[in-house]
Amino acid sequence: MPQYKAPLRDIKFLMHELLQAPQALAGVPFYQANDTADADLLNQVLEEAARFVETELAPLNRVGDEEGCTRHEDGSVTTPTGFKEAYRKYREAGWTALDADPNYGGQGMPHLVSNVLVEMMTSANVAWSMYPGLSHGAYSALHAVGSDELKDLYLPKIVSGEWTGTMCLTEPHAGTDLGMIRTRAVSNGDGSYAVTGTKIFISAGEHDLADNIVHLVLARLEGSPQGTKGISLFLVPKFVPNADGSVGERNGVVCGSLEHKMGIHGNATAVLNFDGAKGYLVGEINKGMNHMFIMMNAARLGTGLQGLGLGEVAYQNALAYAGDRIQMRHEPRVNADEPADPIIVHPDVRRMLLTGKAYTEAGRAMAMWLALSIDLEHHHPDEAQRKEAADLVALLTPVAKAFMTDNGFTTAVLSQQVLGGHGYIREWGLDQFVRDARIGQIYEGTNGIQALDLLGRKVLMDGGKKLQKLAGTLQEFVEDNADDEDLAPYLDQLGKAAGQLGSLTMVIGQKAMAGPEGADEVNAAAVDYLRYFGHVVYGYLWARMAKIAHEKIRAGQDRDGFYLGKVQTARFYFTKLFPETKALAATIKAGNEPLAVDDRAVFGLERALVGA
Amino acid sequence: MPQYKAPLRDIKFLMHELLQAPQALAGVPFYQANDTADADLLNQVLEEAARFVETELAPLNRVGDEEGCTRHEDGSVTTPTGFKEAYRKYREAGWTALDADPNYGGQGMPHLVSNVLVEMMTSANVAWSMYPGLSHGAYSALHAVGSDELKDLYLPKIVSGEWTGTMCLTEPHAGTDLGMIRTRAVSNGDGSYAVTGTKIFISAGEHDLADNIVHLVLARLEGSPQGTKGISLFLVPKFVPNADGSVGERNGVVCGSLEHKMGIHGNATAVLNFDGAKGYLVGEINKGMNHMFIMMNAARLGTGLQGLGLGEVAYQNALAYAGDRIQMRHEPRVNADEPADPIIVHPDVRRMLLTGKAYTEAGRAMAMWLALSIDLEHHHPDEAQRKEAADLVALLTPVAKAFMTDNGFTTAVLSQQVLGGHGYIREWGLDQFVRDARIGQIYEGTNGIQALDLLGRKVLMDGGKKLQKLAGTLQEFVEDNADDEDLAPYLDQLGKAAGQLGSLTMVIGQKAMAGPEGADEVNAAAVDYLRYFGHVVYGYLWARMAKIAHEKIRAGQDRDGFYLGKVQTARFYFTKLFPETKALAATIKAGNEPLAVDDRAVFGLERALVGA
Repeated sequence: MPQYKAPLRDIKFLMHELLQAPQALAGVPFYQANDTADADLLNQVLEEAARFVETELAPLNRVGDEEGCTRHEDGSVTTPTGFKEAYRKYREAGWTALDADPNYGGQGMPHLVSNVLVEMMTSANVAWSMYPGLSHGAYSALHAVGSDELKDLYLPKIVSGEWTGTMCLTEPHAGTDLGMIRTRAVSNGDGSYAVTGTKIFISAGEHDLADNIVHLVLARLEGSPQGTKGISLFLVPKFVPNADGSVGERNGVVCGSLEHKMGIHGNATAVLNFDGAKGYLVGEINKGMNHMFIMMNAARLGTGLQGLGLGEVAYQNALAYAGDRIQMRHEPRVNADEPADPIIVHPDVRRMLLTGKAYTEAGRAMAMWLALSIDLEHHHPDEAQRKEAADLVALLTPVAKAFMTDNGFTTAVLSQQVLGGHGYIREWGLDQFVRDARIGQIYEGTNGIQALDLLGRKVLMDGGKKLQKLAGTLQEFVEDNADDEDLAPYLDQLGKAAGQLGSLTMVIGQKAMAGPEGADEVNAAAVDYLRYFGHVVYGYLWARMAKIAHEKIRAGQDRDGFYLGKVQTARFYFTKLFPETKALAATIKAGNEPLAVDDRAVFGLERALVGA
Repeated sequence: MPQYKAPLRDIKFLMHELLQAPQALAGVPFYQANDTADADLLNQVLEEAARFVETELAPLNRVGDEEGCTRHEDGSVTTPTGFKEAYRKYREAGWTALDADPNYGGQGMPHLVSNVLVEMMTSANVAWSMYPGLSHGAYSALHAVGSDELKDLYLPKIVSGEWTGTMCLTEPHAGTDLGMIRTRAVSNGDGSYAVTGTKIFISAGEHDLADNIVHLVLARLEGSPQGTKGISLFLVPKFVPNADGSVGERNGVVCGSLEHKMGIHGNATAVLNFDGAKGYLVGEINKGMNHMFIMMNAARLGTGLQGLGLGEVAYQNALAYAGDRIQMRHEPRVNADEPADPIIVHPDVRRMLLTGKAYTEAGRAMAMWLALSIDLEHHHPDEAQRKEAADLVALLTPVAKAFMTDNGFTTAVLSQQVLGGHGYIREWGLDQFVRDARIGQIYEGTNGIQALDLLGRKVLMDGGKKLQKLAGTLQEFVEDNADDEDLAPYLDQLGKAAGQLGSLTMVIGQKAMAGPEGADEVNAAAVDYLRYFGHVVYGYLWARMAKIAHEKIRAGQDRDGFYLGKVQTARFYFTKLFPETKALAATIKAGNEPLAVDDRAVFGLERALVGA
């Protein structure tokens, strides 16, 4: 049975030493007014969250995987044993309200805190965590663009956790390409709409945890144009509420089936059939795609956290196994009295473990940096600061989603490898972490789509301004610390790579403007570009963490070796993982030409679609 | 429902054009005497194998995954629906006898042919293929070192497929480290032994396909020394045969349970309890490890073929999806009349598909080269030629096992990614290919162990002689074709990388001899070294395939575009995959130092085991 212990020591290091979050939030009246940015309070909430997650959610993880969800003939769905009770406790303890608006019953805590909670929940039980996770996305969109009437009726219920939410985007023929959706809405003439269509892959789409489910649904209003410009966002409740907020009549939305998936079995992935269901417009007509991206961006960081959380728990269990399992000799011997040594002494096992640790700790630093930036984006009194934070969030969100889920999957697979044959056996739990981690690379926009978002929209579309801002921050750090001998080996690599990232961007940018094939050049480079970008960000964060750690060590303040651990993991990162950038630079430079192959000759298609 | 079509065109290209197998085997009296190396016959057998595999085995693949195997209270095991009937047809069609010794009922076909059959079977149904696969391993060991009495009694039954075989090595506390096994054998005084102990992870360990199961079991004979030098190999039949070969009394070996695994559900992975079971010594006392490696080396190439076969079928299904699924626009448009273009037009989708194709076709070339070399090793009349072939087989076997299973897993994961959300849904089949492919990296010696075998035993132990021989072959090819402008870009990269492989080997070799830490340096470098090595071999094979293809194109003989496909895939390989060597060179050079971290500080252990 796998174990999970929340990495509080590292989280506190990042919150208080790397990000100095209480100080950063001290200048934000919203948190001061709500008294929610106090350092001791933040620690207390994190500790309480850790306790809840370790004791209530982690023990249900394997149950969820083994039992899955059950759909009954009437379309109702039962979640795995224990899920409902855990949700009741979660709700009653107030976790659903953590970072929500106090005007609707929320606690007004920083997003930084809920970010950590989500990481812990995904480590402990990712399938379970998706029920409140989807609610949070629905909350964000409704809070941002919903009418006061809708907000007053629905938000208090979502914040209290009595009702949960979903995002209904995908249809059988329309996944990445939402412009093709066919679900339609017709006005009922009373301010409501009749919504009809089929949505698939709806996470938490039907279940028994809550009294009601609030579906946020993309649909095309009668008479709207084709494509993405004709899509609106509708709220479709499972039960239409009465004016007093009590649950009213059953609405015309039914779970037609549940998908059989590779993993996240404990979450109900529903096919939802909307048959003239009563819905309400959220935000403006034909602005559904914009509104949807409010949910989507939150969901993308949330998905990145799944990569982080699953990497962390897989690493923890591989580490425990590697310390216990004795097999083969190392010289000098460690266990002279036993027939073999613990496998953690073998360098290749250490390589696998260190890979997990280095990716996980850098990912956590990036995610918390991003979460703090979201707090500043939303609440900082200075507009320039809000803009700066918003730009960073926009730039790093696709990196967080794709790089963290890719590295999380890699970490889960390497951790499974540490267990050898036992890693392939279900009861040891690593198999589940690998299967559960795989979906993060696919949903909420595949990692290929994230890469296009980064390179095409976030970097090239504004002429590289957001990238230059980030590069400036890195360059400043490199220059400010040029005399620090401890950091020299890292800063040299980091400075060169940041410079090369700039020149690679220029090259791609020039190709992108050269005629109709330009789009193909962006598409061809995007995935490798995002990985290169991710390494530069992780390198920057490892260098900053190492700087703090070296200072502590020099000051004689490394009592438990935590800072030595940071320094040595940083060294590992720069010598064993960061060099991937050398290969990526070469493949980015190779461009689209090697991909523009003859479709008949190479793929056996009947006609050449692209290449020649 | 996933589909599979055997890649006969590519297989024939490799057999007749790249390897010129009939010509190579023409000088081998064994095949001439059995008349089994004729070009037309080889083609005919391959076509018949393809037909059988596509129609009989592929349709059972998903059934096997969904149903799994069932153990009954009496320890008997039922395989999934259809498995038994398919095995009967397989056996009756003579496939179990394909490359077996005519003295025991075999057909005496080249191993090259059975290699192709195994690739096809693993594409179609890897779990099913393991039942005859394990028999083949048992056959090889028994044939090589068994007494005439044992061979006469057991081999005809295994060759006819009436009985199947297993390899019983692993115990709960002893996987990689077989020197620690506790299963013991005591002489019965009548030439037989009583074998007692528990073996785990026994593939095809119990089932209903055959009348009898022949277990080859590693055990320690009473009075033998501890460690690997005290291990012997025993044959333990499920039913003790009568002298006439009929099935006799039930022996004391029982399936205690079946493992619940991530994949290969259709194969029964058994815990086998031996309780004084009657066994017979195979080969010499205390030489069990050596004898076991006869099976193991065959099993390692067979495992590599699983990576190849699963990569191939995953690629085929991703390709079919990418051609059908329309989503998003490409400029210029391909489907002007439809709302979107097939996703195969998007460069990143092409990158994923081409990765699968490039790895798969190079892997097939390497596997068939290796298989032909095994034929020459076993049967060539000239001792020097046998030695040369044996050295190549020894050198490339760990590469085939690890590089092919790693690339197969990568291909399966990328192919799953091509399907987006559908890739995560079981009915589409990609999920199963990923889960089934994962075990290849773990069993028959983890890929980390393969890397140590390559670098430590095969390369360094003989002072680099085997490597130098291979490097000479490569260098010769590069020099011979120095004037070929079509090949220039590949040969330049290949020549440099082969040279760097030599210098990296020297550096590691020197570190390896420098005191007790030398072993750690080998262990630290091994996995990255094997990947570098694999790329050099694949690069060599792609260059050779491109040379043939360019010649055909220049001669106007590329009627169906097959050769253009080879040339363009070679170009993709060298520009998009081969550059991984740049990163690997850097991480190999970084050595063990970044891994020699403080165990308390980095891993939170109570004491420092290795680093400081």
